Amino acid sequence: MADAATVSEFTEAELIARIQRRLAPPPSWLLVGIGDDAAVVEPERNRIEVLSVDCVVEGVHVDRAFVPPDAIGHRALAVNLSDLAAMGAAPRLALLSLALPQSTPMPDFDGIIDGFAGLASQFRCHVVGGNLTRTPGPLTIDVAVVGTAKRRQTMLRSGAQAGDDLYVTGTIGAAAAGLQMLQRGDVTNCQGSDPRQVCVERYRRPQPRVRIGTLLARNRAASACIDLSDGLADAVRQLASASGVGATVDADALPIDPAARDWFVSRGADPVAAAMSGGDDYELLVAARPRQRRRVEAVARQAGVAVTRIGACAAALDIVVARSNAGAVEVAPLPAGYGHFRPFDKLRVVPSDVEGR
Amino acid sequence: MADAATVSEFTEAELIARIQRRLAPPPSWLLVGIGDDAAVVEPERNRIEVLSVDCVVEGVHVDRAFVPPDAIGHRALAVNLSDLAAMGAAPRLALLSLALPQSTPMPDFDGIIDGFAGLASQFRCHVVGGNLTRTPGPLTIDVAVVGTAKRRQTMLRSGAQAGDDLYVTGTIGAAAAGLQMLQRGDVTNCQGSDPRQVCVERYRRPQPRVRIGTLLARNRAASACIDLSDGLADAVRQLASASGVGATVDADALPIDPAARDWFVSRGADPVAAAMSGGDDYELLVAARPRQRRRVEAVARQAGVAVTRIGACAAALDIVVARSNAGAVEVAPLPAGYGHFRPFDKLRVVPSDVEGR
Repeated sequence: MADAATVSEFTEAELIARIQRRLAPPPSWLLVGIGDDAAVVEPERNRIEVLSVDCVVEGVHVDRAFVPPDAIGHRALAVNLSDLAAMGAAPRLALLSLALPQSTPMPDFDGIIDGFAGLASQFRCHVVGGNLTRTPGPLTIDVAVVGTAKRRQTMLRSGAQAGDDLYVTGTIGAAAAGLQMLQRGDVTNCQGSDPRQVCVERYRRPQPRVRIGTLLARNRAASACIDLSDGLADAVRQLASASGVGATVDADALPIDPAARDWFVSRGADPVAAAMSGGDDYELLVAARPRQRRRVEAVARQAGVAVTRIGACAAALDIVVARSNAGAVEVAPLPAGYGHFRPFDKLRVVPSDVEGR
Repeated sequence: MADAATVSEFTEAELIARIQRRLAPPPSWLLVGIGDDAAVVEPERNRIEVLSVDCVVEGVHVDRAFVPPDAIGHRALAVNLSDLAAMGAAPRLALLSLALPQSTPMPDFDGIIDGFAGLASQFRCHVVGGNLTRTPGPLTIDVAVVGTAKRRQTMLRSGAQAGDDLYVTGTIGAAAAGLQMLQRGDVTNCQGSDPRQVCVERYRRPQPRVRIGTLLARNRAASACIDLSDGLADAVRQLASASGVGATVDADALPIDPAARDWFVSRGADPVAAAMSGGDDYELLVAARPRQRRRVEAVARQAGVAVTRIGACAAALDIVVARSNAGAVEVAPLPAGYGHFRPFDKLRVVPSDVEGR
């Protein structure tokens, strides 16, 4: 047994106090915070509420060998804020439920809380309550969040129509490449300025697209939106399916992260397939009427986030990828990849490799 | 491998559809339910919101050998509704997050959802969203709930004053006795009318005291309230500590379940210590000003729940148990028992035995 103390040596009250010390001061709308049977909050006036819950399980969603404790805490909240962003909701509060192995070292516990609290503070998402339990299994972090939006300003998956443009925020593929780099040990000694480090950081500490999500919703620029938690291919399929449309994705237009592209090519993989099927990007896929193009571009400038048109919705229900090859455009069905129709035992499994698909 | 299918043979979408089929029809305030990135709800007018999260881990909070699947689902919601009841809040919605071992048989999955949905329906608590993931560890069910109450009508732990009466709802000790009976295999063949079966049922399917909790709050009958999830001794300690008072508990007045008392005596245990330190009762401990006694009694009649005065708060910070013995009253400090100040590794551990304490 190592020297570091573990959570098993502390009382529940002591662990809760350590969490509270790491949180921002309570907002005025929090009437009763941590310490009673439940939290009491004043709802925000003239807003509807958007609720989501997501779970990070060690060994399923994160590998402790590659993801430091603060990044685990960061991710547990980021995946939820990404869901709020996809709905166009502003984060308001979070409930944090931790199931901890008794052997969890205290520096890891503190690190997880630091990562969580840091991202919460960045997005003014207040932790109003939570739960601590021990588990004989892996570290499991369940987070529920509540965000707010004005009525009729939430974005759904189901609002897209044939002819709508499809956009994606930021770049794709970096997180999947970063995970592969970590798994192959190719980045242990690379410097902060190394482009590979960008991929690793994107994998470890994804930035939820909260600002552009809320701006798209407030400006009613989008007809539909979904986040890319399970990859672009899955997101296109789900948005199209919920909207009752098909889609064409222009592979040549995809904003694949340059370092990720280099990585995929160096591994002999098809960068388009790898970037489309790789998960954990937490960008947004946005559908918008063609007449909203300028509004989408204006919102992107205001948010300081690149937005790239990657295709369009179509009346025919197929989902196809168009790709230029030696001067001609080839059209092929979207690869099954890393998608929603996988069996449950493959659910959200960290892909060890996407090469050769 | 048995014949029964496991969750690993189904897709996430199929499992979600099985859950949806078991839920009550969506209420009008649910603007977007299961199926998008997040749920969207219309807040209740002129109400504050009460939020709680709690977690049930197999092997820590429930033992599959003694607790059938529907009772696991029931418990996962009941522990949360009990927290709302202690605040005086009416349940409104729940988020259900399930981490499932791949070997989970489908009948168990369906049973868990049936137990959860049944209790949700009973208390008009709508499941607006959730999450499914696989886990290499034990079955873990995280539930977040939101309830509502009128402003200034929530009950806190901290409102008790010296001189306030202490009441407990229903009876205590039955759940702890029921668990011991199950662990000793004494109830495998007993009939439904056997009083031991009442203890087992109280352990397996605790009934959260939602109705009396909300009535106490609406009638402003209580000065403080807490639920008995970790036993009466722990609840008295926590309510007194939060309120800055001490307390005297009248052991002779405790409403110990008769079958539980018989059981503890038959095992050579002190029924007072066993009933006070045993967890899982999910009754409410209520503090009220002496002048509110009639109001408390009227609320109890209206709710159809027995309420028993078991002591009073005191200015001196000690917590003592008064007990008659051969005509004299003996006063002793509250036994440490099964309390909040336990180390984290003992947190909520199912007590295998409380005898001999």
